[in-house]
Amino acid sequence: MSGADLDLLCINTLRTLAIDVIQKADSGHPGLPLGAAPMAHVLWQRHLKHCPSNPQWADRDRFVLSAGHGSMLLYGLLHVTGYALSKDEVLNFRQWGSKTPGHPEYALTPGVEATTGPLGQGHANAVGMAIAERALAARFNQPGHTVVDHYTYCLVGDGDVMEGVAMEAASLAGHLKLGKLICLYDSNDVTLDGPAKLSFTEDVAKRYESWGWQVLHVADGNSDLGAIDAALKAAKAETGKPTMIVVKTTIGYGSPNKSGKSSSHGSPLGNDEIALTKKALGWTHEEKYFVPDAARSHFAEQGKRGDAARADWNSRFEAYRAAHPALATEFERVMKGDLPAGIAAALPAFPAGTPVETRTAAGSALNALAKVVPEVIGGDADLGGSTKTVLKDAGSFDGQSGKGRNIHFGVREHAMAAVANGMAYHGGVRPFTATFFCFVDYMRPSVRLAAMNHLPVVHVWTHDSIGLGEDGPTHQPVEHLMAVRTIPGLATVRPADAAEAAEAWIFALERKKGPTGLVLSRQKLPVFDRSEGKCAAAKGLHKGAYVLAEAAGGPPAVVIIATGSEVQLAMGAKEQLEKDGIATRVVSMPCMEHFAKQDAAYRDTVLPPGVRARVSVEAGVTFGWDKWIGERGVAVGVDSFGASAPDKILFEKYGLTVANVVAAAKKSLGAA
Amino acid sequence: MSGADLDLLCINTLRTLAIDVIQKADSGHPGLPLGAAPMAHVLWQRHLKHCPSNPQWADRDRFVLSAGHGSMLLYGLLHVTGYALSKDEVLNFRQWGSKTPGHPEYALTPGVEATTGPLGQGHANAVGMAIAERALAARFNQPGHTVVDHYTYCLVGDGDVMEGVAMEAASLAGHLKLGKLICLYDSNDVTLDGPAKLSFTEDVAKRYESWGWQVLHVADGNSDLGAIDAALKAAKAETGKPTMIVVKTTIGYGSPNKSGKSSSHGSPLGNDEIALTKKALGWTHEEKYFVPDAARSHFAEQGKRGDAARADWNSRFEAYRAAHPALATEFERVMKGDLPAGIAAALPAFPAGTPVETRTAAGSALNALAKVVPEVIGGDADLGGSTKTVLKDAGSFDGQSGKGRNIHFGVREHAMAAVANGMAYHGGVRPFTATFFCFVDYMRPSVRLAAMNHLPVVHVWTHDSIGLGEDGPTHQPVEHLMAVRTIPGLATVRPADAAEAAEAWIFALERKKGPTGLVLSRQKLPVFDRSEGKCAAAKGLHKGAYVLAEAAGGPPAVVIIATGSEVQLAMGAKEQLEKDGIATRVVSMPCMEHFAKQDAAYRDTVLPPGVRARVSVEAGVTFGWDKWIGERGVAVGVDSFGASAPDKILFEKYGLTVANVVAAAKKSLGAA
Repeated sequence: MSGADLDLLCINTLRTLAIDVIQKADSGHPGLPLGAAPMAHVLWQRHLKHCPSNPQWADRDRFVLSAGHGSMLLYGLLHVTGYALSKDEVLNFRQWGSKTPGHPEYALTPGVEATTGPLGQGHANAVGMAIAERALAARFNQPGHTVVDHYTYCLVGDGDVMEGVAMEAASLAGHLKLGKLICLYDSNDVTLDGPAKLSFTEDVAKRYESWGWQVLHVADGNSDLGAIDAALKAAKAETGKPTMIVVKTTIGYGSPNKSGKSSSHGSPLGNDEIALTKKALGWTHEEKYFVPDAARSHFAEQGKRGDAARADWNSRFEAYRAAHPALATEFERVMKGDLPAGIAAALPAFPAGTPVETRTAAGSALNALAKVVPEVIGGDADLGGSTKTVLKDAGSFDGQSGKGRNIHFGVREHAMAAVANGMAYHGGVRPFTATFFCFVDYMRPSVRLAAMNHLPVVHVWTHDSIGLGEDGPTHQPVEHLMAVRTIPGLATVRPADAAEAAEAWIFALERKKGPTGLVLSRQKLPVFDRSEGKCAAAKGLHKGAYVLAEAAGGPPAVVIIATGSEVQLAMGAKEQLEKDGIATRVVSMPCMEHFAKQDAAYRDTVLPPGVRARVSVEAGVTFGWDKWIGERGVAVGVDSFGASAPDKILFEKYGLTVANVVAAAKKSLGAA
Repeated sequence: MSGADLDLLCINTLRTLAIDVIQKADSGHPGLPLGAAPMAHVLWQRHLKHCPSNPQWADRDRFVLSAGHGSMLLYGLLHVTGYALSKDEVLNFRQWGSKTPGHPEYALTPGVEATTGPLGQGHANAVGMAIAERALAARFNQPGHTVVDHYTYCLVGDGDVMEGVAMEAASLAGHLKLGKLICLYDSNDVTLDGPAKLSFTEDVAKRYESWGWQVLHVADGNSDLGAIDAALKAAKAETGKPTMIVVKTTIGYGSPNKSGKSSSHGSPLGNDEIALTKKALGWTHEEKYFVPDAARSHFAEQGKRGDAARADWNSRFEAYRAAHPALATEFERVMKGDLPAGIAAALPAFPAGTPVETRTAAGSALNALAKVVPEVIGGDADLGGSTKTVLKDAGSFDGQSGKGRNIHFGVREHAMAAVANGMAYHGGVRPFTATFFCFVDYMRPSVRLAAMNHLPVVHVWTHDSIGLGEDGPTHQPVEHLMAVRTIPGLATVRPADAAEAAEAWIFALERKKGPTGLVLSRQKLPVFDRSEGKCAAAKGLHKGAYVLAEAAGGPPAVVIIATGSEVQLAMGAKEQLEKDGIATRVVSMPCMEHFAKQDAAYRDTVLPPGVRARVSVEAGVTFGWDKWIGERGVAVGVDSFGASAPDKILFEKYGLTVANVVAAAKKSLGAA
C-alpha cells in the first residue's frame, strides 16, 4: 500500500470509528471528526512527539482539542495509537463510568491533556502550556543539556475563535511571541445553528495577524495532506511567533446528505447515512468500529517512535542528572507537583498592633515563599500595584526566553485564569493570578474548570468587599463570596488578619489537588495578638474555621462567626458583650468549604451544638449562613449592592459595626 | 475670543475641573479626563445630539463612557452642559449619597446612559444600543416620517479593547454592519501598571478592520481638534460599517511630571502637581473648580441646540402621530417600557399527561407572547435549535435595515448579555438571550450589571442540570442555581412543568425593573394536572413558591420543597409517603429569591413554621437550602460535578429518585 493510501486508510479509520461510536451512543458530534481527521492524523503521525505507553512523559508535545465536542476524534487517536484506552472503553462512549465522556476530561482519560468543551478554554489552556514550557526551559535547560523542548498544539473550531477568552489568550500569546505554540483551525464555516456566516463573517486570519501571529493557510484540509504537513513544518520553523494554520475543511466530510451542513454537527448521522458515508469514503468494511490491520500497524508506529524518543530523552536526562544533579532532582520534584520541605519557615511574621491590609500581608508571604518555591510563577490583570502580587526582583516573563516570573496578563481576566489552568495542566509550575475580587465573575468559567480538574492554581482576589470604597458598586464584591463557595472543589480563603493571610498562602500551596482563591482586603486590618492566652494561632486556618478567641469565664453563651475584615467586629463585640456578662466565643472561618469537610467532632468543638445563639458577620450576602448559625442565629451582612464612598463610611452605613454585631448577638440570645 | 481659543478654554475647564474634584475626593482617575477631554469636547460640542434639559428624549444620540474610571470627564460634561447635576453634586464626587460615584451609574445620574467601570462592558453596551436603534427604526419609521434616527457613540480605553467581552461585541457589530455606531479609542499606551506595552503590543486598528469596521486615525488627540472633528464626520458618513477612531493621546496631558505615565492613571495628582499642570495648560484661574463664563456660555449652547433639536423632533413626532396614530401610541408605550394589556391570554395551554421539556414549553410561550409584544427581540449564542428560542417567521436581525427579530449572537455568550443590557439601556425593546445554563458563567459580569441597573433583560438558560446528560460535567450546571441566586436583584425562575414555564415568561415580561433568568430542562417533564382539586394553578409562580399539592387528609406532617424537574420526584414521594400514612405537602419553589420577598404571613402559609420535617429536592448544590428546610430538614441534591451519561441514569446514580426523597422525608420526620 502506498504511503498516501495508508494515510487515507488511517484517516478513514478515525472517521468511521467516530461515526460508528457516536451512532452507538446515540449522542455526539460527528461533523468535526469527519472534517478534521486529516489534519489530526498528519499532526499525530508526522509531528507530534508523544509516547502512548507513557502519557506523562515530561517533555512530550502537548495536544489540546479545544473543540472538545469532537471528542471522538481524540478518543480514536488515543485508542489506535496505543494509549491505555481499550476498544471497550471507546465503545462505551458517553456512558456512565466510561473513560470516554461527551467532552474530553483530563483527570479521567490517559492522553487527554485538558478538559475541553466550553468553547475557547482549550485555546487559552494551550497558551498556558506554551508559557509553562518556556518557563521550565529557562529554569532547567543548561548548555549542552536541553531537557525541556516541546511544542504545544491546539485544534480549534469556529466556536473557539469566536469566544472572548480565546481572543484574550491569543492576544497575549502574540504579545509574548510564543513561537512553539501551533494552532490548527478547523475552518468549516458551519456552527450548530447553521452556516457560520449567520453570525460570523470576519477575517479571522487578519485578526490573528493583528496579534502578531504567523498565519498559514491550507486550502483543502479534506485531502491535501501535503499542504497540512508543509504548514506544520513552516509553523515549527517560525520560532518568533505563534502560528495559526487556517485549514479549510468540510464539516461532516464524506456524508452525502449532511456534509457541509449543521445537521452533521451535533447529532449522530443515522445508520442509513453512515452506510452512505462509508461508501462515499471508499470504506468497504462491513464490521462496525473496524480498524484495518494496515492502519493499526501504521498507527502503532507512533507508539514505537514515542518509546524511542522517550528513551532518548531518558538517557539525555541521565546525562543531565550527572552534570546537574540538584537541578535534575528539582525537575523531578516540580513535575510531580511536590513542594520543597519546610517552606512555612520562610513566612514573614506580623507583629500585633500595627494594622496591615491582608493583600499586603499576603503579598509579603507570596514574595517570601516564591524565593523558596521557584516554580511559583504568575501575575495579574494590570492591577499588580493594587493586588501586591508582584514578585520583586523576579523580572517580567519573556515568552521567548522563558525568563522572568511576573506574567503581565493585561486586562484579560478570563484568559488569565484559563492560561493559568494551562500552566497547571502542563505541570512543573505553580501558577497564580491576581485581580480585584469583583472580577472573579470574568474568570468564573475557568475557575470552575480548575476545580473540576483538581488544578492547583492560586487566585489572589483583593479588594474583597464594600471595603474597597470609592470605586463603588461596580467594583465592590457583595455576592461573590457565596457565589464562589458554591463551586465544588474550590477552596475560598478569606483571612482575618496578616497572620492568617500568610498562613493562607501555605494552605494554598499545600493544596496539590484543586484551586484556591485568596480573598483579601484593600483596607488595613488589626493584627490579632496571638501570644499565649490571647488569640489562637493562625494555623487554625488549615481546618477551615477555628476558635480565635474563647469566651471569658466559662462556656460561651453566644458564638460569633466571622470572616476576613469582619473578624475585628466580632472581637469588638465580644469585648462589649463580655462587659455585659455575656460569655462570647469568636470563630474565624476563613474557609467555609474546608470547615464543612472536617469531621463532626472537630466541627462540634468549634460550634458547640448546644450553643444556639450564633451570629455571622461577613461583608457579603447573608444567604448561605443559615447552615452555620441555625434557626436562632442572626446574620449580619450586605444584601444589596454597595455604593461609592470611603470604606469606613460604607461599613457604618451598611451596618457592619460592633454595635450591630452586639445587637445581633443579643437578639439571637433572645431567640435561643 | 477665537473659536479655537474658546474650545481650548472649554477643554481646559473639563480638565481642571476633573483634577480639582479628584483631588478633593482624594480618589479617582485624572489621567483619562486630561487626555480625552479634547475628543469628548469636540464630540459633545459639534456632533452629539443631546438635550440636557430632557435627558430621556427618545431620539437623542447615546454616549457611553466605557472607560468608566474616567467618570469625572463625564460628570464635568454633564454639569457644564446643563444636565441636572449641580456643582455641589460634582464636588461630592465619590462620597456617600452623591450622584457622582466612582464609576458612572445609570440609575443614579441624569445623562449617564450606562453603568461602566468593569472594562469592556460599555463597549458592548454601545453595540446593543446601536442594535436597538435600528430595530426601533425598522418598526416605527415610515415614509416621510423618521422618528428614530440617532448615533451611538462610545469612548473606550486600552483596557476596554483588551477585554474579551468587547472583542466579541465588536466582532458582532462588524458582522451586523452597525453603521451608526462610532467609537473613539483613547489610545494612550498606558495602563494602570505601567506602559501598555508590558502586556499589549498588537495592531488594534488591524483587529477592528478584521471585524469589518472602518478604522480612522487621529495622530494628535491632545490638540488637533480639526482632525477629531474630521474623523467624526467621516465616521458619520460611513453608514455601512461601524467606525473606530483611534485617537492617540497622552494620559495625564498637561501634568509636567505625570503625563504619559501610569502615575497619572488612578490617583489624584497632588496639589503641587495640579498647580504645575494648570500652569502648563495656561490656566490662570486661582479658584478651584472654576468654570469661566465664556466656557460656560459656550457649553450652554449645547443645551440650546438640544432644546431646539428636541422641539423639532417633537413637532415631527406630532406629524407622525397624525399620520400614524397607532404607531405613535405604540412608540410611546414601548419607550416607557409598558406592556400591552392582557398578554397572558396569548399563552398556550399544555394538557396534563403529555410530558414536555420546559425549554420547549417556554419556547412556545415566548413565540406566542412575541406575537402580542412586538418589542420582544433577542437571540441565542448559536444554540437556538436547543434553547427553542427562535421566533418563528420573525426573520434574522439585519443590522442595516433593523428588520428581523432573531439576533444571531454567535458563540459569544458574554457579549450577548452585555449587548442585551445595551438594548435595555436604550429602551423601546425587550431583549432576551439564550444559551445553556452552564454558560451563565460566561455571562455573569453582564448579568450582575443588569441586576444592579434594574434592566429588564430576560435570559433563557436551558439544559439546567445533570439532566443535560451525555455532554457531561463541562456542560452540566451544578452550582449555578445557587450561584445566580446570590446576585441581588436577579430573579431566577426554574419552572416545574410546562404550565409554570409559560407562566414564567409572563413573570419575566412583567418585571420591568430587573433581569430574569429562566432555568429550563432539556428533558421531558410531566405536566401536572392542575384541574380543580388536583394541583394548584401555575399562577402561584408569581409568589416565588406555592403549595402545588396539599397533603391528603389533614395538615402536613412533612413539606417537600422542590424546583424544576425535581418537583415530579416530590410528587412521586408524596404519593408513596401518603400510602404510608404520612401527610405530605409539595411546594414548588420556582423563584426562591422572590419567595423570600413575600410577607411572612404568606411565607408561613406555604411553609408552616410548625412543620419542622422538611425536604428540599433540587438537582444542584444543597448549599443554601438550610434557609428553607431548617435544622431538621434534609436536602437532596448534587454536591459534586456531574458526569457523562444518559440523563435517567445520572438521576439514578446521583440519588435524585423518588425513593431517596421518601427516605429523606422519613429521616427528617425522625429528626423532627
